[in-house]
Amino acid sequence: MRRSSLLLAAASILLPSAAAAEEGMWTFDNFPIAAANRDLGTSIDQKWLDKVRLASVRLGGASGGLVSPDGLILTNEHVASRCVEDLSTPERNYVQTGFTPQSRAEERQCPGMVAEILTDIRDVTQRMQAAGAGLSGEAFTKARDAEAGRIETEACGSDKSRRCQVVTLYRGGQFKLYTYRRYTDVRLAFAPEHRASAFGGDLDNFSFPRFAVDAAFVRLYENNQPVKTPGYLRWNAAPPQENQPVFLSGSPGATQRLLTQAQLRTVQDVTLPLEQLINSELRGRLLRFSHENERNAFIAGQAISGVENTYKRGFGRQQSLIDQRFMARRAAAEADFRARVQADPALRQSIGDPWTDLANLQPEMIRLYPGYYMLEARAGGGSQLYNWAEDLVRGAQERPKPNAERLPEYGDARLAQVENGLLATRPTYPALDEVQLAWWLSKVREILTVDDPRITPLLGKESPEALAARLARGTRLGDPAVRKALWEGGFPAVQASNDPLIQFLLKIQDVTRATRAEYEGKVQAPTDRASEALAKARFAVFGTSLYPDATGTLRLTYGRLKGWTYQGRTVPYATTFGGLWQRATGAEPFDVAPRLLAAKDRIPAATILDVAASTDTIGGSSGSPAINARGEIIGANFDSTVLTQRNAYGYDPEINRSVLVTTTAVTAALRHAYGQSHLLRELGVR
Amino acid sequence: MRRSSLLLAAASILLPSAAAAEEGMWTFDNFPIAAANRDLGTSIDQKWLDKVRLASVRLGGASGGLVSPDGLILTNEHVASRCVEDLSTPERNYVQTGFTPQSRAEERQCPGMVAEILTDIRDVTQRMQAAGAGLSGEAFTKARDAEAGRIETEACGSDKSRRCQVVTLYRGGQFKLYTYRRYTDVRLAFAPEHRASAFGGDLDNFSFPRFAVDAAFVRLYENNQPVKTPGYLRWNAAPPQENQPVFLSGSPGATQRLLTQAQLRTVQDVTLPLEQLINSELRGRLLRFSHENERNAFIAGQAISGVENTYKRGFGRQQSLIDQRFMARRAAAEADFRARVQADPALRQSIGDPWTDLANLQPEMIRLYPGYYMLEARAGGGSQLYNWAEDLVRGAQERPKPNAERLPEYGDARLAQVENGLLATRPTYPALDEVQLAWWLSKVREILTVDDPRITPLLGKESPEALAARLARGTRLGDPAVRKALWEGGFPAVQASNDPLIQFLLKIQDVTRATRAEYEGKVQAPTDRASEALAKARFAVFGTSLYPDATGTLRLTYGRLKGWTYQGRTVPYATTFGGLWQRATGAEPFDVAPRLLAAKDRIPAATILDVAASTDTIGGSSGSPAINARGEIIGANFDSTVLTQRNAYGYDPEINRSVLVTTTAVTAALRHAYGQSHLLRELGVR
Repeated sequence: MRRSSLLLAAASILLPSAAAAEEGMWTFDNFPIAAANRDLGTSIDQKWLDKVRLASVRLGGASGGLVSPDGLILTNEHVASRCVEDLSTPERNYVQTGFTPQSRAEERQCPGMVAEILTDIRDVTQRMQAAGAGLSGEAFTKARDAEAGRIETEACGSDKSRRCQVVTLYRGGQFKLYTYRRYTDVRLAFAPEHRASAFGGDLDNFSFPRFAVDAAFVRLYENNQPVKTPGYLRWNAAPPQENQPVFLSGSPGATQRLLTQAQLRTVQDVTLPLEQLINSELRGRLLRFSHENERNAFIAGQAISGVENTYKRGFGRQQSLIDQRFMARRAAAEADFRARVQADPALRQSIGDPWTDLANLQPEMIRLYPGYYMLEARAGGGSQLYNWAEDLVRGAQERPKPNAERLPEYGDARLAQVENGLLATRPTYPALDEVQLAWWLSKVREILTVDDPRITPLLGKESPEALAARLARGTRLGDPAVRKALWEGGFPAVQASNDPLIQFLLKIQDVTRATRAEYEGKVQAPTDRASEALAKARFAVFGTSLYPDATGTLRLTYGRLKGWTYQGRTVPYATTFGGLWQRATGAEPFDVAPRLLAAKDRIPAATILDVAASTDTIGGSSGSPAINARGEIIGANFDSTVLTQRNAYGYDPEINRSVLVTTTAVTAALRHAYGQSHLLRELGVR
Repeated sequence: MRRSSLLLAAASILLPSAAAAEEGMWTFDNFPIAAANRDLGTSIDQKWLDKVRLASVRLGGASGGLVSPDGLILTNEHVASRCVEDLSTPERNYVQTGFTPQSRAEERQCPGMVAEILTDIRDVTQRMQAAGAGLSGEAFTKARDAEAGRIETEACGSDKSRRCQVVTLYRGGQFKLYTYRRYTDVRLAFAPEHRASAFGGDLDNFSFPRFAVDAAFVRLYENNQPVKTPGYLRWNAAPPQENQPVFLSGSPGATQRLLTQAQLRTVQDVTLPLEQLINSELRGRLLRFSHENERNAFIAGQAISGVENTYKRGFGRQQSLIDQRFMARRAAAEADFRARVQADPALRQSIGDPWTDLANLQPEMIRLYPGYYMLEARAGGGSQLYNWAEDLVRGAQERPKPNAERLPEYGDARLAQVENGLLATRPTYPALDEVQLAWWLSKVREILTVDDPRITPLLGKESPEALAARLARGTRLGDPAVRKALWEGGFPAVQASNDPLIQFLLKIQDVTRATRAEYEGKVQAPTDRASEALAKARFAVFGTSLYPDATGTLRLTYGRLKGWTYQGRTVPYATTFGGLWQRATGAEPFDVAPRLLAAKDRIPAATILDVAASTDTIGGSSGSPAINARGEIIGANFDSTVLTQRNAYGYDPEINRSVLVTTTAVTAALRHAYGQSHLLRELGVR
């Protein structure tokens, strides 16, 4: 059974043909129940799907799963680590000690954390496609954004307990309205020491065998009470078996599996190298900053993990783009698809030649992307203070406009999100923002070149370093009360503010907005139109047995727990605590977390720690509950491998593997290392 | 005339076909006198060539030209800047003030600087090719290295006033013995403020229009007296004219114009990205280090310039490798060459199929290169202390061996070079070495991966940061007397040393030497053999009207002073001091050097500053005297453009431009800004 589905996968390979077994991040309203049951020998049904969906939780850009009737959620420590850091100070550092309350009363709210459960999916394709019909360029983008805003507002109004989102699927082939139940009081219930989750640091990140207890618990609250969640996933702490079927339900962030060969070439030659090169310098600056003293090491911890994670992911992607076997497969799939379209004169007539359209767009993409990327996508260089200032300035400029004319991220249906992030009470460390801003400003100038007319409005006659210091040291936006007053005071308050960061954001709006509009009009809009034509052709050729690219929305993927063999090396499906003790050297980052190490004699060495699975995941899937055929939780996805990063462009059945922490391991850690008997009781573990 | 030679250049394009007009870094014993005279309308002859050769000076990895009968050499400030920094302290900082002695008595010796003049060229191809005949792998490399060492020793013996070097030309198609007159007392005679040379910093580096007085003077001494150099180049301070013929005589470092398509693919996909990515992180670490305080900014200045220069060069190269027009030309040239070989059965029979051999080598290259690059080519991360320790340890291990069995850099004929660098008195700043070592050690571990068996011998159980701190803070190699004692004490002294850096270098020799030997045996040697076959085929097909790849040895290139037009933008051939005043913002790095700025009213705005030329140059050409048809010096090459970086892989006649500082500008600066009347008199300027 397994053998035949693997062969099938290898033969039918990659998108844009119909998906192979184990490939696919499926939407819950188009999950291939019969195929999955056939491939896995399971018997899940619609009821199973509904239950899993309602127990699946979106946590910002990541995922989690309900595991008790009292709103308890299993996710990853690295998903909750921003919260752990926000609740810590250099003096009371939960990052180092773990966060191990002895009762619910000690659980603490995570600043800005929002949890969402998908309650409804509705098709709005016709309305969205009609809105853009006959338009092009910036007008097309604006009309689409406006219609999405209208649909969202009609559905959710100003109800802050729900969020409505028009989701683009199949690159514009479908649009769905997703409605979420929204929770804004999410509390940290447990986190191990960060080192328990990050054993091996960046070196072991994106790798397997792996030895990480990358698990944490958060809990939903409303009115200061835990939320009742009867439809939770039952905790199964039994050791998982090799080849056992597994499902992951989570919110994978973004894949680009429908990119044409011409677009992939641009990724390989231009966009990915740019991202990697500048991130590499940022990494260097942050690392040196963190080496200066203990305090800086604490301050920069999250930022370093973030940039290292992005860099290593990019490295894996670069490797896939130079893997001739992988790329040849992908080219063959595109050639096959084009030939099928060519063979159907009516289809050819109706969709035109989007491949050539996209190829012709690439020079303009290459010309405009660096400016867009530096001035919009990476604006502020990750500085929290900058991001707040941007939301304050743009929010103040956008909110007075009719909903349909705003930048989409400030549409009525999305303002609650913005406000939630803006008003959260969390510590700020301007020294870190200064590093990030200096890096960003200097890279903008370098990449656009000093003679670009946008540089003077940005820098004036200041150097990047001097400007960054003036902004980060001078701003008072670290104070939540200041942010609240500016948000509530609207544009008059913002304009009257003498905060240097607010003034800077006001000053650069002409330049950044024009850069964004030009890119969206000349590149994004025609790309969207051509992609939509490709999507229509795909539906015509392959029917509806397709899954859409990941877009940060809820998906279900299935597979089995299994290892792999690559270039002569065979990797088994599971690791044990015994493996962890063996790999430890005592020197950072291969030092076992102290509380875990103290439990060494109590945790049997053969206890399974992490497992690999053939499920189809990508960044954003982190924290996805791993569910068995009976609907019980057996672990949480937390990673994949460097080789799996090609997953952005296509599923490679031989080597694609997700990495999960098991409920077996979490149970052992809670019991033997962290004394969390109240949680174990709640999970129903004897 | 000019038009027709441009058309010819565009038509015959790039190597490996016969060179086009203005293309080529020619050796002095194979310079195309007739072609140059025809292209330029000049009438140079062998006597002209001999004179220019004897006035051309190799300065480490760069160039200079004799400009007076008393050993005075014009070069670039950036070539002398290491010396300026070595002579400076944070308190007495010539980098900031310039070095402007009022007489020869104030000239100061540059630590470790060596000047060499090429006095003789002799063919040794037969001996070298015979030495490697019938051998392969490591044996081939060793036999060749040994024969080169023998030839060098036979010619120069232990005479430290000369250096003999077997030079590989045409990738092994020719070998020549170059004999140099060698000067080890080189004194700084003048340097402007660093900002005068580096106006615009990294942002204006590799660009034109350019506004840099990148000039300095050094002087040859022997027995504490200036060396008599009657064959100098006469100083011509007249404003240079557009389209004027120009010759550059210098030591361009390395081109790879004979790389096959398969090899270029490896450069594009593997070697260049690796270099760029890790340099980018090093740059970030050094920049942050330099932002910490004034002292660190001073300490890290040279290291930052170096890595930024390498990075920007690499960026230009990456751009060329994705330029489809450029790469298509190169592919066409290779296809043409292969077809010509195919059409000649005898030739085909004798050379085999080196293209396929090289293509088949690439997987092994890709497998072994990262280890070789990290553990050998970049070992120590640029740390001066590490480099000294390596020379001490390897020198001690190699010197007792017979000359033919040593690592070639420790052959008898090269020991004087090593010793000169090792015993020079120059300041060290262990804080900088610590940054460089920590970066290097962490990158080695990341790129080889932590499970590579070479990591434990390197790091033991220490973290890269802890090890770097222990080595940089603990070593006493900053003291020249300590280095001298270890060098003279040989292996017993080295082995008995408890210096942590010495001990570290001793410990890692097994690993680094094995890595090097494997790479040389499995990649370098077969690459050399195949390249040699290609070189033979090129001679057979194109005759001797070829120039060899640059190898850091003396070359002559010719062209004209001219601008260019690219993507609709036309750039004129020259800039003026008026342009400098205009471009200045006052903010670093666009602040005019104070002493230069103070002369603003005395230097006419129309005075020509820098010019562009169509000469064929590459890194190492810096400081090359620019010479007119009468053999007078009219400037010094100091840079090229980002677009010109494709020059590594092929000459692109439309856009290839060298950037020169003019004698006109230097004269104005010496007179009006720096009060160097004694130098002006020596140069014969009224």
